[in-house]
Amino acid sequence: MTRLRGKRALPLSRVYRVLEPGPVVLLTTAQKGRANVMTMSWHTMMEFEPPLVGCIVSNRNYSFEALRRTKECVINIPTAQLAKKVVACGNASGRKLDKFAAFGLTPAPASRVAPPLVAECYASLECKVVDARLVERYNFFILRVVKAWIDPSATRPRTLHHRGLGEFMIAGRTLRLASQMK
Amino acid sequence: MTRLRGKRALPLSRVYRVLEPGPVVLLTTAQKGRANVMTMSWHTMMEFEPPLVGCIVSNRNYSFEALRRTKECVINIPTAQLAKKVVACGNASGRKLDKFAAFGLTPAPASRVAPPLVAECYASLECKVVDARLVERYNFFILRVVKAWIDPSATRPRTLHHRGLGEFMIAGRTLRLASQMK
Repeated sequence: MTRLRGKRALPLSRVYRVLEPGPVVLLTTAQKGRANVMTMSWHTMMEFEPPLVGCIVSNRNYSFEALRRTKECVINIPTAQLAKKVVACGNASGRKLDKFAAFGLTPAPASRVAPPLVAECYASLECKVVDARLVERYNFFILRVVKAWIDPSATRPRTLHHRGLGEFMIAGRTLRLASQMK
Repeated sequence: MTRLRGKRALPLSRVYRVLEPGPVVLLTTAQKGRANVMTMSWHTMMEFEPPLVGCIVSNRNYSFEALRRTKECVINIPTAQLAKKVVACGNASGRKLDKFAAFGLTPAPASRVAPPLVAECYASLECKVVDARLVERYNFFILRVVKAWIDPSATRPRTLHHRGLGEFMIAGRTLRLASQMK
């Protein structure tokens, strides 16, 4: 695996700032020494610190069993430059394919979990499953982010946001307002 | 209340397309004949159809008790034109203020629930709480969308996406790719 370069640790108290806008993400898992990556966009922040994230991983996805059994994953956040690879990951299953090799994504070692980071993504959140009680009914996992990485140059990342059926919105301009909300 | 104009019913199977990109929303509740509106952006789709939505409403918010007791709300999706009003709703509490009157938002009657739609929003989702088992631990409500409305002219809405601390990303250009994902 490639060593991670050009990234710094993102304080856990700021994790919500990369996930709250609703980007499409690449979720990595690993089982029996084999890593996989899937495309996901049904997720939400649930707590600021320690950062908790809720997400849906369908039991039809190959990643489901790996996440349920190993209780570890990494949420990687791509920008529009990776759009074609993100869609390719969504159209294929890890059951038969090494998607990293097939689509030119680079696994890099995480620090606290076994699944790899995706080096091409501007931010990566190493996560452990902390609550699985809604998995059976809804495929809903509650994750705790235990370590986070970010490319410090990506202050206004052009993230992808799924509108369904192959239509993606790309993050546009930034507006600053006097919000008292965290 | 103003009658809703210029909106059509949005098929429930398409609800995910307005919520999945991660927009900031205005959540309306009503209790004892009094409506309230709060700003929210911690939400996720959980199922396509019937559409299920999970969201965090903090127990520090005035809306929490109304939602917990009445089990009804409306998720209204604003565009960037409403940015100042959205932030004003987030900075104020309904405990002391009628935010509709104070910020010039127009309540319009919903068809299936008591809380009003926000007429200025381009889409509105009438919801009922269907699972409250994670409310005590996480303030996490699972909602079922029972009726949805959309402005048919808003095909590429300039939604707001919160990056924290008063910084909002505005939806930018649209990219179409050959995704097989729903």
